[in-house]
Amino acid sequence: MSVHKYTGKYHTAAEPTPGVLHLSFNRPPVNAFHDDMWGELRKTIEAVEFDAQYRVIVLASSLEKYFTAGLDLADAQSTLAGRKGLDAARQAFKLNKHLVDFQGAISSLQACRLPVIVALHGACLGLAIDLASACDVRLAAANASFAIAEVNVGLAADIGTLQRFPKVVGNDSKAREYALTGRKFSAEEAKQIGFLSEVVPGGRKEVLDAALGMAKTIAEKSPVAVVSTKHLMNHARDHSIQEGLQYTAAWNMSMLQAEDTAIAMKAVLSRQTPNFPPLEPVKAKL
Amino acid sequence: MSVHKYTGKYHTAAEPTPGVLHLSFNRPPVNAFHDDMWGELRKTIEAVEFDAQYRVIVLASSLEKYFTAGLDLADAQSTLAGRKGLDAARQAFKLNKHLVDFQGAISSLQACRLPVIVALHGACLGLAIDLASACDVRLAAANASFAIAEVNVGLAADIGTLQRFPKVVGNDSKAREYALTGRKFSAEEAKQIGFLSEVVPGGRKEVLDAALGMAKTIAEKSPVAVVSTKHLMNHARDHSIQEGLQYTAAWNMSMLQAEDTAIAMKAVLSRQTPNFPPLEPVKAKL
Amino acid sequence: MSVHKYTGKYHTAAEPTPGVLHLSFNRPPVNAFHDDMWGELRKTIEAVEFDAQYRVIVLASSLEKYFTAGLDLADAQSTLAGRKGLDAARQAFKLNKHLVDFQGAISSLQACRLPVIVALHGACLGLAIDLASACDVRLAAANASFAIAEVNVGLAADIGTLQRFPKVVGNDSKAREYALTGRKFSAEEAKQIGFLSEVVPGGRKEVLDAALGMAKTIAEKSPVAVVSTKHLMNHARDHSIQEGLQYTAAWNMSMLQAEDTAIAMKAVLSRQTPNFPPLEPVKAKL
Amino acid sequence: MSVHKYTGKYHTAAEPTPGVLHLSFNRPPVNAFHDDMWGELRKTIEAVEFDAQYRVIVLASSLEKYFTAGLDLADAQSTLAGRKGLDAARQAFKLNKHLVDFQGAISSLQACRLPVIVALHGACLGLAIDLASACDVRLAAANASFAIAEVNVGLAADIGTLQRFPKVVGNDSKAREYALTGRKFSAEEAKQIGFLSEVVPGGRKEVLDAALGMAKTIAEKSPVAVVSTKHLMNHARDHSIQEGLQYTAAWNMSMLQAEDTAIAMKAVLSRQTPNFPPLEPVKAKL
Amino acid sequence: MSVHKYTGKYHTAAEPTPGVLHLSFNRPPVNAFHDDMWGELRKTIEAVEFDAQYRVIVLASSLEKYFTAGLDLADAQSTLAGRKGLDAARQAFKLNKHLVDFQGAISSLQACRLPVIVALHGACLGLAIDLASACDVRLAAANASFAIAEVNVGLAADIGTLQRFPKVVGNDSKAREYALTGRKFSAEEAKQIGFLSEVVPGGRKEVLDAALGMAKTIAEKSPVAVVSTKHLMNHARDHSIQEGLQYTAAWNMSMLQAEDTAIAMKAVLSRQTPNFPPLEPVKAKL
Amino acid sequence: MSVHKYTGKYHTAAEPTPGVLHLSFNRPPVNAFHDDMWGELRKTIEAVEFDAQYRVIVLASSLEKYFTAGLDLADAQSTLAGRKGLDAARQAFKLNKHLVDFQGAISSLQACRLPVIVALHGACLGLAIDLASACDVRLAAANASFAIAEVNVGLAADIGTLQRFPKVVGNDSKAREYALTGRKFSAEEAKQIGFLSEVVPGGRKEVLDAALGMAKTIAEKSPVAVVSTKHLMNHARDHSIQEGLQYTAAWNMSMLQAEDTAIAMKAVLSRQTPNFPPLEPVKAKL
Repeated sequence: MSVHKYTGKYHTAAEPTPGVLHLSFNRPPVNAFHDDMWGELRKTIEAVEFDAQYRVIVLASSLEKYFTAGLDLADAQSTLAGRKGLDAARQAFKLNKHLVDFQGAISSLQACRLPVIVALHGACLGLAIDLASACDVRLAAANASFAIAEVNVGLAADIGTLQRFPKVVGNDSKAREYALTGRKFSAEEAKQIGFLSEVVPGGRKEVLDAALGMAKTIAEKSPVAVVSTKHLMNHARDHSIQEGLQYTAAWNMSMLQAEDTAIAMKAVLSRQTPNFPPLEPVKAKL
Repeated sequence: MSVHKYTGKYHTAAEPTPGVLHLSFNRPPVNAFHDDMWGELRKTIEAVEFDAQYRVIVLASSLEKYFTAGLDLADAQSTLAGRKGLDAARQAFKLNKHLVDFQGAISSLQACRLPVIVALHGACLGLAIDLASACDVRLAAANASFAIAEVNVGLAADIGTLQRFPKVVGNDSKAREYALTGRKFSAEEAKQIGFLSEVVPGGRKEVLDAALGMAKTIAEKSPVAVVSTKHLMNHARDHSIQEGLQYTAAWNMSMLQAEDTAIAMKAVLSRQTPNFPPLEPVKAKL
Repeated sequence: MSVHKYTGKYHTAAEPTPGVLHLSFNRPPVNAFHDDMWGELRKTIEAVEFDAQYRVIVLASSLEKYFTAGLDLADAQSTLAGRKGLDAARQAFKLNKHLVDFQGAISSLQACRLPVIVALHGACLGLAIDLASACDVRLAAANASFAIAEVNVGLAADIGTLQRFPKVVGNDSKAREYALTGRKFSAEEAKQIGFLSEVVPGGRKEVLDAALGMAKTIAEKSPVAVVSTKHLMNHARDHSIQEGLQYTAAWNMSMLQAEDTAIAMKAVLSRQTPNFPPLEPVKAKL
Repeated sequence: MSVHKYTGKYHTAAEPTPGVLHLSFNRPPVNAFHDDMWGELRKTIEAVEFDAQYRVIVLASSLEKYFTAGLDLADAQSTLAGRKGLDAARQAFKLNKHLVDFQGAISSLQACRLPVIVALHGACLGLAIDLASACDVRLAAANASFAIAEVNVGLAADIGTLQRFPKVVGNDSKAREYALTGRKFSAEEAKQIGFLSEVVPGGRKEVLDAALGMAKTIAEKSPVAVVSTKHLMNHARDHSIQEGLQYTAAWNMSMLQAEDTAIAMKAVLSRQTPNFPPLEPVKAKL
Repeated sequence: MSVHKYTGKYHTAAEPTPGVLHLSFNRPPVNAFHDDMWGELRKTIEAVEFDAQYRVIVLASSLEKYFTAGLDLADAQSTLAGRKGLDAARQAFKLNKHLVDFQGAISSLQACRLPVIVALHGACLGLAIDLASACDVRLAAANASFAIAEVNVGLAADIGTLQRFPKVVGNDSKAREYALTGRKFSAEEAKQIGFLSEVVPGGRKEVLDAALGMAKTIAEKSPVAVVSTKHLMNHARDHSIQEGLQYTAAWNMSMLQAEDTAIAMKAVLSRQTPNFPPLEPVKAKL
Repeated sequence: MSVHKYTGKYHTAAEPTPGVLHLSFNRPPVNAFHDDMWGELRKTIEAVEFDAQYRVIVLASSLEKYFTAGLDLADAQSTLAGRKGLDAARQAFKLNKHLVDFQGAISSLQACRLPVIVALHGACLGLAIDLASACDVRLAAANASFAIAEVNVGLAADIGTLQRFPKVVGNDSKAREYALTGRKFSAEEAKQIGFLSEVVPGGRKEVLDAALGMAKTIAEKSPVAVVSTKHLMNHARDHSIQEGLQYTAAWNMSMLQAEDTAIAMKAVLSRQTPNFPPLEPVKAKL
């Protein structure tokens, strides 16, 4: 079946509901991320983005106790070790390129035109915050624990947490406390500061169910409306209100010519369930 | 009395306390908005803004069960139906102009130099979020329920919600969840994510009383201080901190020459209640 | 001892833990700020910033009941009184220069490369909000009460509150309500809207202990990681996500060449406590 | 004929070529601008902008020796005189409103979706630079002379010159020299620094002919292409290249669905002259 | 030889001088660009960018009379024809993606860390301006002629000209005139408005020689200095001066640790020719 | 006499005309800049800025053949040599601080509220471009020659040239050519691309006379107008047009209350020479 093409060496792929792609990290024992793993994630996200069969992505972990322990330190050390014979500036060029690539992999979740719901549980350390902050909706199991752990390994988080975390939460003091102390915080704390939509009682299974349920709701909406909503919210976050409004008017002057608005209004007025066509004709599955 | 000139076909106007203009939407049965209704609102706001008799605006609804059900769908459909014989680009020009006008009506609440307090109750759907997000202070009755309902009618919210809602609340995950699912949320939820200043027990009457009380407090402050505070907070939201500080220094180098500072300081030191003159001499009421 | 050089006429200085500079405002009876007092603060902050002996600053008040009552109104009045014989434009030039200097003093807390934790208790009025909003982490005692009091003295807050407060909290409605009404709010309210990391039961002593404990944790981290984290979070707040990521990649291409990452990783792998050298060799204390 | 509705008290209106609106300032003896005159200009520009009969505007002066001598000083003095009994802050509010309105009148030339070609001749002083800088294309007769004259009357140009002039020319040193010294400069100098497209030998008649000729060329192009080109160049000037490209992609995703591209390409391939329909059906002239 | 790997179906590749990659468009009869051609260019540029053997790129055309006639109109028409059965919004999604890809291909010249010198001759129409504006240095033969031709085919230039052309020249009036009229302009005119570094007497061969000579000079400089200079000038164009300075300080705090500065200073002091190592060790050629 | 307090170890100070401060670099044999020299310049500029006796600054060189040969390479090498025992990250912190200080010294010319006219002659290399680009008006003697020489010493210009030079000229191709090749260019070339206001025939004396003449003109204008003009042009360069207009309206709402406008208008109407008071009463000279 076609969803198999999105399965990777370090994640599984499934379509539990029509239009919902469920990706699940799977690199035992702790989902430690090395270059191949985030490279594979990016490749998958960028491929599914324009596959009109899918309308929403759910990101999760297959391991019972870990969303991810963060970076694979052994792998990271080899990156930092540098190349013999290069001066500090030439090392810097290599590091800059590596960082830009790594940042790009995490940013692919935000850039993806489909919404991404992340289901968090267990240990969500370091890179987990970078990943989750780049998703659209964050749900966590009650057993989840979090840490912006980079400061503990002698570096400033540099692939997205420091940029996105303070902008998605509502307490800058806590954001700085977490980033400067590297201390763990609970799902409940995370909810209180606005990092999560919901804390779901239980663990891996329960939060995944909640995420899939929300995904199903979104998959049934107009894809024109859903993709535009994410696109415009991404734009709005980085612009003044007036800039955002101007861009929205430019964007929607074509989107309002979709048949979806007529379909939806007709359904609303006739109290029926609307059925929206995909953004492009979907090829028959094999 | 002069307040009557601010009464419109779709809203009432009153001055329950000196300096407080109370506008109340009134288009039964559900305050559905069509072009004339938001056009009238804009005209009123832009007229009162420079009427030195008023110092603060309270926005509310006269209907018991509805703040507003949102757009008047029949009216909207005729806008979207387009004009026969125009190609998609020429339709787009028409839609762009309509959107810019509609956005401008909502933005007039934010741009108005007087603070606007909105008293929300009952059903607050779709356009209600656009309107409320453009106000300065949001109070809601316990019976209020909310929805960013646009996604349900096949379009992305395009007159302000996607720009303002995430910036006035403290939970980006919830903001995106609401916008992508179109689901209802309660006043309590709205308070938790930072959308509201307060949830007032009761319904229409109770939240209006609270709003008028707050408005009275503000109306007794220095109008130089109040107008400047709103103006500078609007500016600050869309600028870096340093930009905001520089603009503030330029703005206040004249404002600090107001007599208000002397009046206020004198009152503070002498423990009397200060009495601040309006921004311009107010003409005698007829 | 060297810490004494940071003692001023209006604040004490101590090093309760290695690497932690504790500054405590001390101008009885209410820590009212005049030009000399904020000038002295700025001078101290800018001097300690590049003293590699220190890694974090704790800001507090020595008075039992007041963090600060705000501006020294008598002093402020003489600033506003203007100079005889100058027209309004020339007065404006003088006021602009004064504001820029005053803003710069408050901003020095944010610009300082070392993190600043503020321990708030008792009355925290007016300038207290400007100061606290410019710090990185805010802790308050349960007995603390707050007010954005400027509107009560006939002016718009112009040295940082209107710029920073709405960006560090998660409820724009409350931010505007506080700024427009000047009303007091409790530590609990402040926590709920995201202004504080924590409300510490008790008063001056208790919140100071909590702040010093957090400071000790941070002082033991890699100074490369800590200074970079604050620097990048400051940058991120005022830039789009992509801008922040690009700057981070430029910044960290040298920072990742620190020995700290190797020290930290080695310690993590060997389960020992890492010991990070200062940013520059520290001269022996006298 | 319908063009008459665009005639005003201080300017004439004509349609010398189909689709070209020619507006000519006419307030002898020197086209000194007072509030009514720029208010009338704005009203006219905002009305013609959405009149699909017109595709380009030519702005000129009917007086032989003056494009404009600038502000009507007597009128300006009454604005600056202030209102008795208002303190400096309250005067400032009045002045701010006046400036915003005046700026808006000049900016209407830039904001107008139709291109504006200005034909300059004779004395082009003060306001002339503000006006011309807000137009799209600037042609001048050889007899034209220019001055950023505001510094000579004790104020900084505040309705557009300081913002636009340096951005439309290619010599910041000259821009500052002109603004700081108020000295006159010739059409030739203006051409050399990039202020003008062309210096046309002769005077009023000659430069007007050149402007009308260029207007005719533009009026025959696709209005979708012309309006979009101005719109996107306005946007580009105030944004980074990447921002401009993103906005362009949003804008053109509907514009490329115009029939104009097919009409034009067909004409190009068949070597015929394309004939483009207006943006909306034009009503029959009376 | 290794340079052959950069040869494509539509361009040749050569290394006339060590470190200089010479790419020459070659799609007779007029170098009309279709999707494959710009796709290939992007692929080549992104591959050579991190090949430390090369230090500068020269872009030219192999055809005697054409740099390029612009878009391949037949190919473009098929893009614009749309896909049957899709509504205007869904067509818009397809067009948006196509535009973003096309823009990305042109932008790869600007984004490439190596400087790109373009040698222009003969007909340089439409896309030629997009391409040349994205290069660093522009040289043209005296026989070159230019046109921003998009308006002639019913669309606004949307792959870079409207963003970059006005920012690289010094005459906004001319930029708008060219874009609105689509008229041809000569190399001499192009030089006068600041589009070109130089007009070289002659044609294809002469301008190519001049470009290769300049490229040789740049290839002998420190690659740390050259790459950083382009990188920082790209950044500066889209930022305020202060932003650019801050980014430069972050960037150069590693770059100043290059051995190149010592090599260069030593050479300057000893009046010898410096010899700078590449950014990474270059593999032996096959 | 009071002007003597602005004399430094590396520059002379004179007041050739009332209100004109003439600073002349004087470190034979070639005005090579080391840290003390630019530190002294900054200190002088920041001191004179608020000395109401002065209204304009002329910057020049006392040496016949050199404006400046640029950096003192021996001094620069010691900065770059680093401190033994510091890793690359800690070296980077030191370099960053040095760069920020050095940038601040050059930027003080731009930030200074008084206009700065630079009179260039002879060799104007490296730092000369940074300095001149930060001034308001640039005049050069015909014997002047220029080079953005940093690339020749293995580094990217990092104290302002790459930020300011492309923004003050009108030919981005030339700007990049000069920065990438490090080649010399003549005063005539510099004029053509828009770097200079004028090329003055002759050498040091002639260009200085021209600069002092222009300075005299400016010194006789209203200081409110002159200081505001520079301030608003600095602001405009780094902002969108609309942002610039908004800031201008805030700034001028106090400036238009100057008596200068009345003085100037009265003088204009009565055809007399206006005499404007300084921004603050000037103390009697000793």
